[in-house]
Amino acid sequence: MGSSFGNIFRINTWGESHGPALGVVIDGCPAGLPMSEEIIQHDLDRRRVGQSKVTSPRQERDRVTILSGVFEGFTTGAPISLITYNADADSSKYDIIRDRFRPGHADYTYHVKYGRRDHRGGGRSSARETWGRVASGAIARALLATVDVDVYAFVRQLNSIKMETFDRAEIDRNLVRCPDPVAAQAMVEAVMAAKEDNDSIGGIIEIRADNVPPGWGEPTMDKLDALIGHAMLSIPAVKGVEIGMGFEAATMHGKDHNDGFYMDNGRVRTISNNAGGMLGGISSGEQIVARIVVKPTSSVSQEQQTVDLEGNDRTILVEGRHDPSICPRAVPVAEAMMALVLADLYLLNRAAQI
Amino acid sequence: MGSSFGNIFRINTWGESHGPALGVVIDGCPAGLPMSEEIIQHDLDRRRVGQSKVTSPRQERDRVTILSGVFEGFTTGAPISLITYNADADSSKYDIIRDRFRPGHADYTYHVKYGRRDHRGGGRSSARETWGRVASGAIARALLATVDVDVYAFVRQLNSIKMETFDRAEIDRNLVRCPDPVAAQAMVEAVMAAKEDNDSIGGIIEIRADNVPPGWGEPTMDKLDALIGHAMLSIPAVKGVEIGMGFEAATMHGKDHNDGFYMDNGRVRTISNNAGGMLGGISSGEQIVARIVVKPTSSVSQEQQTVDLEGNDRTILVEGRHDPSICPRAVPVAEAMMALVLADLYLLNRAAQI
Amino acid sequence: MGSSFGNIFRINTWGESHGPALGVVIDGCPAGLPMSEEIIQHDLDRRRVGQSKVTSPRQERDRVTILSGVFEGFTTGAPISLITYNADADSSKYDIIRDRFRPGHADYTYHVKYGRRDHRGGGRSSARETWGRVASGAIARALLATVDVDVYAFVRQLNSIKMETFDRAEIDRNLVRCPDPVAAQAMVEAVMAAKEDNDSIGGIIEIRADNVPPGWGEPTMDKLDALIGHAMLSIPAVKGVEIGMGFEAATMHGKDHNDGFYMDNGRVRTISNNAGGMLGGISSGEQIVARIVVKPTSSVSQEQQTVDLEGNDRTILVEGRHDPSICPRAVPVAEAMMALVLADLYLLNRAAQI
Amino acid sequence: MGSSFGNIFRINTWGESHGPALGVVIDGCPAGLPMSEEIIQHDLDRRRVGQSKVTSPRQERDRVTILSGVFEGFTTGAPISLITYNADADSSKYDIIRDRFRPGHADYTYHVKYGRRDHRGGGRSSARETWGRVASGAIARALLATVDVDVYAFVRQLNSIKMETFDRAEIDRNLVRCPDPVAAQAMVEAVMAAKEDNDSIGGIIEIRADNVPPGWGEPTMDKLDALIGHAMLSIPAVKGVEIGMGFEAATMHGKDHNDGFYMDNGRVRTISNNAGGMLGGISSGEQIVARIVVKPTSSVSQEQQTVDLEGNDRTILVEGRHDPSICPRAVPVAEAMMALVLADLYLLNRAAQI
Repeated sequence: MGSSFGNIFRINTWGESHGPALGVVIDGCPAGLPMSEEIIQHDLDRRRVGQSKVTSPRQERDRVTILSGVFEGFTTGAPISLITYNADADSSKYDIIRDRFRPGHADYTYHVKYGRRDHRGGGRSSARETWGRVASGAIARALLATVDVDVYAFVRQLNSIKMETFDRAEIDRNLVRCPDPVAAQAMVEAVMAAKEDNDSIGGIIEIRADNVPPGWGEPTMDKLDALIGHAMLSIPAVKGVEIGMGFEAATMHGKDHNDGFYMDNGRVRTISNNAGGMLGGISSGEQIVARIVVKPTSSVSQEQQTVDLEGNDRTILVEGRHDPSICPRAVPVAEAMMALVLADLYLLNRAAQI
Repeated sequence: MGSSFGNIFRINTWGESHGPALGVVIDGCPAGLPMSEEIIQHDLDRRRVGQSKVTSPRQERDRVTILSGVFEGFTTGAPISLITYNADADSSKYDIIRDRFRPGHADYTYHVKYGRRDHRGGGRSSARETWGRVASGAIARALLATVDVDVYAFVRQLNSIKMETFDRAEIDRNLVRCPDPVAAQAMVEAVMAAKEDNDSIGGIIEIRADNVPPGWGEPTMDKLDALIGHAMLSIPAVKGVEIGMGFEAATMHGKDHNDGFYMDNGRVRTISNNAGGMLGGISSGEQIVARIVVKPTSSVSQEQQTVDLEGNDRTILVEGRHDPSICPRAVPVAEAMMALVLADLYLLNRAAQI
Repeated sequence: MGSSFGNIFRINTWGESHGPALGVVIDGCPAGLPMSEEIIQHDLDRRRVGQSKVTSPRQERDRVTILSGVFEGFTTGAPISLITYNADADSSKYDIIRDRFRPGHADYTYHVKYGRRDHRGGGRSSARETWGRVASGAIARALLATVDVDVYAFVRQLNSIKMETFDRAEIDRNLVRCPDPVAAQAMVEAVMAAKEDNDSIGGIIEIRADNVPPGWGEPTMDKLDALIGHAMLSIPAVKGVEIGMGFEAATMHGKDHNDGFYMDNGRVRTISNNAGGMLGGISSGEQIVARIVVKPTSSVSQEQQTVDLEGNDRTILVEGRHDPSICPRAVPVAEAMMALVLADLYLLNRAAQI
Repeated sequence: MGSSFGNIFRINTWGESHGPALGVVIDGCPAGLPMSEEIIQHDLDRRRVGQSKVTSPRQERDRVTILSGVFEGFTTGAPISLITYNADADSSKYDIIRDRFRPGHADYTYHVKYGRRDHRGGGRSSARETWGRVASGAIARALLATVDVDVYAFVRQLNSIKMETFDRAEIDRNLVRCPDPVAAQAMVEAVMAAKEDNDSIGGIIEIRADNVPPGWGEPTMDKLDALIGHAMLSIPAVKGVEIGMGFEAATMHGKDHNDGFYMDNGRVRTISNNAGGMLGGISSGEQIVARIVVKPTSSVSQEQQTVDLEGNDRTILVEGRHDPSICPRAVPVAEAMMALVLADLYLLNRAAQI
């Protein structure tokens, strides 16, 4: 239970951090979509470790191989199986966590729930599991592209540094994926400072989707908002999600929060977009806007208080290679999850009317 | 598609605001649970309209009838069907919205998605649909009570007024369901002021669950966090959800956010609970803590800009009886959704080990 | 768990034989389908008890009320809730089965599984549950009719009497729903003879669907054949299902069983239809043909060997009103289940290609 | 859509006949189950091609590799990913079917549904897909073994030759997997004769499960019978399934078909087992008995009438290596599907009572 997501466009991820391989199976991708390893690799390369000085130096190749479901350059409607082999996995540094639980990590809860766990590199609870999300998300994005839907994300805030300008082209030009080059520079420095301190910092990512037509979302339980909430809070280290004005709505008045309608060249639009592109759980035709908070990396190279398997109080010093902030690498993961939600709702919406 | 929630303990709500009745079917409730209409009605009475001066005066009886699945005072394992009949429904005030879309409501998006809609009272998108959530949530709460799990919620913030003290007993003593009697008084005044202005205000609700044992949650996609996100963002007017420290984590450092472990009389505990009771998507044994933001009520008695079915720019003045703030009535709905998530994960967790 | 069927077009039945009401919720019916109680009642009237001398004299009205999901004559895309109230339920005759298990019935297995049961009239395991199948099946049939798909069934064999001619118009002209009027007459006599003997007889029903376009079915697990198998074997008293030539295929040779293809006015057809209209789990465009075996009614007014709740050997004489053969009344149920399968696959197939 | 099966214990197969690999992901296997490649390979070896003169000479190694979900000899609760690489795949013989549809195969229906297909070796519709069923079924069988449930199957009839004696030990001693050594000899001859004639034959397989405790099955839609129907009819070439007396029940009387209850050393048993071990869709504690019919292999080396992609009438002579009867190799597949059904219902039943 639990490693699949989606109704029609449905993924099932598998694999552990230091096992022989990780992968994902996509069941329900429509046939006829142009697809190749290059298309998927493009998104994976944006996710991978070792890409810059602000991320972990671990050299994962993350290379995707398509094992099924694609024939002569097109999806066939059969399950698409994607795999990557783990190459550079050094488990020895993780011996200490075989018996001690890392604070902020899932070591203890996996141990209680399952009675055992693959502790190496965090095993199943490692963020390396997000490989399958990004890989399958790339296919979802390709499907969405056939109807011009464009999903992208960026770091909006890192610790207390907030972006103040937006230039989409800047996002991939800097190490922290911030669309404001000035803020980006300050963010990079903040990450380096945290690294220096053997500490870590959190931040906020914004995810947008352009050109989503009105009508996507399946109320009352599988609302667009609800599926975004599900998807985003399944990402490791994410502790909150908001739509449109989000938590700011708490201090707003109704007459200000409501987005009035008007006609724009025969198309229904809203004057503002406080709702973040959805009403009653269904896309309105305006830009989809969501934000997530990413907690500071749990792995910090400082001595922390913990307990061991035998129930003794202990301390632990977690070594290994870790990102001082997860945010930059979480950007493509968040994009992928948004794309998976939208791809599923796009297909479900085909059954909305006779 | 879309009106069911849960894997094993699964609900399916149905009904429109001004149709003959509303209801919910619960499929998958274990047999042997003591159950009666009184148990369910208790929760429904906390939700119902007309209970105070800060809520809408509509006189709904909201009376539940159990139609199946309960025999001689116990659940039988068969689907439980709950119904309430709509009595006091005056649809005439809604004639104006047959052809014009209310800003902030789902009128437009339902129209686009389905090509038609029952406009009366908001039809399917009305918050009246939450009757079924609260009714089924009462059964989930009863199931959870067999293992001592206790779910409750309260208004933490209304517009800019924040609670500063916590006394659980206070929650149901005031009209806004705030556990701080001083803040509660200010909140009541804020609601009345908004009403006076034909306006509405938003706020923040906190939901807690005590005594959840470690082990509940189905990573990597059906994490406890993720299901909470799904459940909460499916509630009308909710625009954000956060777990534990939530969005505050953005500005924290890892060494401060991590909750260290210690032994407490043979039981593993954490020193702090910044994680809100879950790690890696699985309950840790600490208190479950989530918060949601509720937008200001969309129905405000002010003229607003909109369009009509024929694509003309129009204005609309929404009449009818509406709560100036949804927050107080959303409290039992949020409790219900949390209970539904936990009941399902409780049952799923029985399959975690051989 | 367990009372829902379908992926997109999904039903959830509820209710017990002698409870206050029975019903079904259909979630996922597309909007825009003309719908009324009359359309549904038409199918229900074909199912109901007391319609002839060969069925039970119990006077159920079986009257359907639409509680939601239909507005001004059309489905709205919202869940459709259908209900019927139990009127003529005399539970006293069932007192004996409170403590003793009827052979051939589900009394014992429900007792073991759930630890208790509503014994009255068989409770949840009563064939009265099929009301919801037929009611929702009527909606599925209406949806299929929009694409000219026509589902019908008939009694092919009753005990050892087999039909030898086929005239569809005859099906509803006789009490046993056999398309061969001569065989029908012999079947009626066989039913009456069984009734005279306080015994019961079984038979075989054939279900067909005309005009199903090629392409419906979701291999490899949700093949058209597989969903038919699931649907049919969920009907009370059904003990087997076969497709096309079915069990006769055991003694055939490949060159004879294969249906060769040919072009017929630009359309691909097969010369024969031994496959029953599906290849590789996907409809081929030929007539869908399935057959089910219905066991003889378990309720026979004869003393039978059994045990009681306390684990004592006992005998039991089941009284009450029962059909000497379930077959005639199972015909509309089988039609309904086939329609539910096809409606779901029709909608799912909309996602087969980009 | 469509390549997954199960609710809690859920599999997702993937892969094409001549792609680089095939596999299956098992999500929801409980932690703590002893597991190894040897355990899985044991079942796979019973399925594999090239094992005898009555099966195809293709040399598949079918070697399983566990990629995830097993750590230090035990399942961890994480998804289990199993893979086998396709080595000996010669696609050139399949060039002819790129443009022409083989009668009895899924070439035409896949083409219509998906607009394209991987034609090589039958692609996704090849029986090679059953590798994942058997591999995951081996894990289901291991889980069932922890509660002493034992699943096995055998060929009961091949063409017109029926078994007359039963000795379980004989099943794996002969090439056709028949528990009657005399009948087995005749069956082998029938297979060889069919091969000689470039033809193929069908047959009947019986599947049994011993020691299934009473209580497994989720009425009213996910009855044990219904899930068996779904599972069995999803196997390639299976055209029918029956439970207990199955189609023979058509000609039986109720008093004979009913299985009377009696006490046997404190345990409730039935005198006969015409019901095949289930009542009302729930296991009764008696032996589970199901039978399936397997059509004669569609690939026969004879010229057959067909059409091509452009809509011209054509003939086709299918070359390649094929089993003259699928039955012997379908035995482990049928066992696997029965095990998958039972494993899922075993886990679901843990939620039947509070």
